[in-house]
Amino acid sequence: MLAIGIDLGGTNLRWCVVDGSGEIRHRGRRPSPKPVPQVVAALREAVAECREHFPEVAGVGLAVAGTVTEESVSSVNLDWQEVPLARELALGDLPVIVENDMNAGAYGEMRFGGGRGLQNLIFLTVSTGIGAGIIVGGRIYRGANGLAGEVGHTVVDLNGLLCGCGRRGCIEALASRTAIERDIFGEIRGGRSSVITGLVDPDSGLITSGHLAQALQEQDPVVTDVLERAAYHLGIFTGSLVNVLDTECVVYGGGLIEACGEFMLPIIRETAYRHLIRPVSPDKLPILEAALGDNATVIGSAMLASVERLGNGS
Amino acid sequence: MLAIGIDLGGTNLRWCVVDGSGEIRHRGRRPSPKPVPQVVAALREAVAECREHFPEVAGVGLAVAGTVTEESVSSVNLDWQEVPLARELALGDLPVIVENDMNAGAYGEMRFGGGRGLQNLIFLTVSTGIGAGIIVGGRIYRGANGLAGEVGHTVVDLNGLLCGCGRRGCIEALASRTAIERDIFGEIRGGRSSVITGLVDPDSGLITSGHLAQALQEQDPVVTDVLERAAYHLGIFTGSLVNVLDTECVVYGGGLIEACGEFMLPIIRETAYRHLIRPVSPDKLPILEAALGDNATVIGSAMLASVERLGNGS
Repeated sequence: MLAIGIDLGGTNLRWCVVDGSGEIRHRGRRPSPKPVPQVVAALREAVAECREHFPEVAGVGLAVAGTVTEESVSSVNLDWQEVPLARELALGDLPVIVENDMNAGAYGEMRFGGGRGLQNLIFLTVSTGIGAGIIVGGRIYRGANGLAGEVGHTVVDLNGLLCGCGRRGCIEALASRTAIERDIFGEIRGGRSSVITGLVDPDSGLITSGHLAQALQEQDPVVTDVLERAAYHLGIFTGSLVNVLDTECVVYGGGLIEACGEFMLPIIRETAYRHLIRPVSPDKLPILEAALGDNATVIGSAMLASVERLGNGS
Repeated sequence: MLAIGIDLGGTNLRWCVVDGSGEIRHRGRRPSPKPVPQVVAALREAVAECREHFPEVAGVGLAVAGTVTEESVSSVNLDWQEVPLARELALGDLPVIVENDMNAGAYGEMRFGGGRGLQNLIFLTVSTGIGAGIIVGGRIYRGANGLAGEVGHTVVDLNGLLCGCGRRGCIEALASRTAIERDIFGEIRGGRSSVITGLVDPDSGLITSGHLAQALQEQDPVVTDVLERAAYHLGIFTGSLVNVLDTECVVYGGGLIEACGEFMLPIIRETAYRHLIRPVSPDKLPILEAALGDNATVIGSAMLASVERLGNGS
């Protein structure tokens, strides 16, 4: 069975047609519009394009960076409040499932990625922020109001650095790419020298995940120290999460991990295992890198549409 | 329908017969033996006593302070490792359900306590340690290995005080009765005077929850300060938990909350609400005191036995 998977992010709108084995058979991308009418028009165009290539698609799974309830979508990234997206889209005969993007990504990683064959996992992404999707018993865990998985503001250092949210010591304030950037510039301002100075575009002043990977390769001591500390914090946070949720697996994704996971994941693993209160042997709790990369969300969305179509629940 | 609920703790063995509306119709208690044969004998006696009064009991729910899997029970408190308790008990025609005590307590509070009518809640107890039972969709959330709900060693202050577990800044190291006792004695040693000095039994040197309640009533400044800080830490921890799990309700129980909840819960609530990343109005996320007191576990256990007997799952 073929289904359309769409990822509506704050920056890009991506779509693809996915078959029953998780293979992408067609794909497209454009910048995301934000006003609802333009988004609806862009989504209809994307769906029409997919149907042109594959008229037999059975449904649409649409992932949005935001809070998704049965009725509506609210999204800070898109500046949306309670938009009844599925209803506005009105694709007639083609069923549409709307899902939070982290949940869709978690579902994709469970079906065809790092958590393949498992039923209970946490999918964590580290990028400008830190997000999660949780799978319990093979299904997306949404919580009572569809708000579950807001892990980025878990406080792990209550007297620690200020977070963008106004609180102190959230994991996002310690280990997101934004936090890492702040810490590297802090070290440089403090007098340490780093290859980062030569890598960063002086106009944007932004450190990308690619810069970090390159600095690691050149064994830059500042970047190594800062990423080591971030990975240590992620490890403590992962241990605490697993203590509460007792998942079978933790899958780490997002731009920072794609670029620097080889360096960070061993530290995350070692720290997390030490923080488990009931030790589980590492083979019984793999802490893995996401296998689908940034396709997890589109593949997961399409799979959710297929499952719904097949009536197996989600 | 009548069922037997049993709570096998590290200190006391308690049992009762509970009817379908959660009322206790008969009860008994004795100190807990620890060696398995003595425990099995004591459990058989308790069951026999209940059946003498109510021959029609339909099943036994047995809650144990420890890790419960389908096959066995492991318990630090009882010094047990993988004891096949249900099989050893062998009550013949009478079905036995074995459950972790925090899970059973959470189930009791959902059925007839603070979470009555709800399907998604966290039951937290604050006593010498901090424990939790999690209910999702009306069922106990056990995790992949039956280890879920180990919230006591959630790190909230990674550079903070040493915990008994060897880590730093676990919530148990900041807000359990043990931590509170340490902090009060610390303040007294530091030169502050407190009514606690006159209340504590000089032989045991222990501060009980009752002492704390009395000191609060006398507006003792040391106890007030220490409990205020503990409640603040519990609030941050509660906010982080709700951000991840998005429950409908948080129920606080345990000896410390029973004694000092009137003082601590308003602080816990206010802090927790401020730490929610997606604000939920307080009426949509009540943070309540447990309604069943220390009967939550026996009532919950009996209800689990009834439900199993009725074939409704758990």
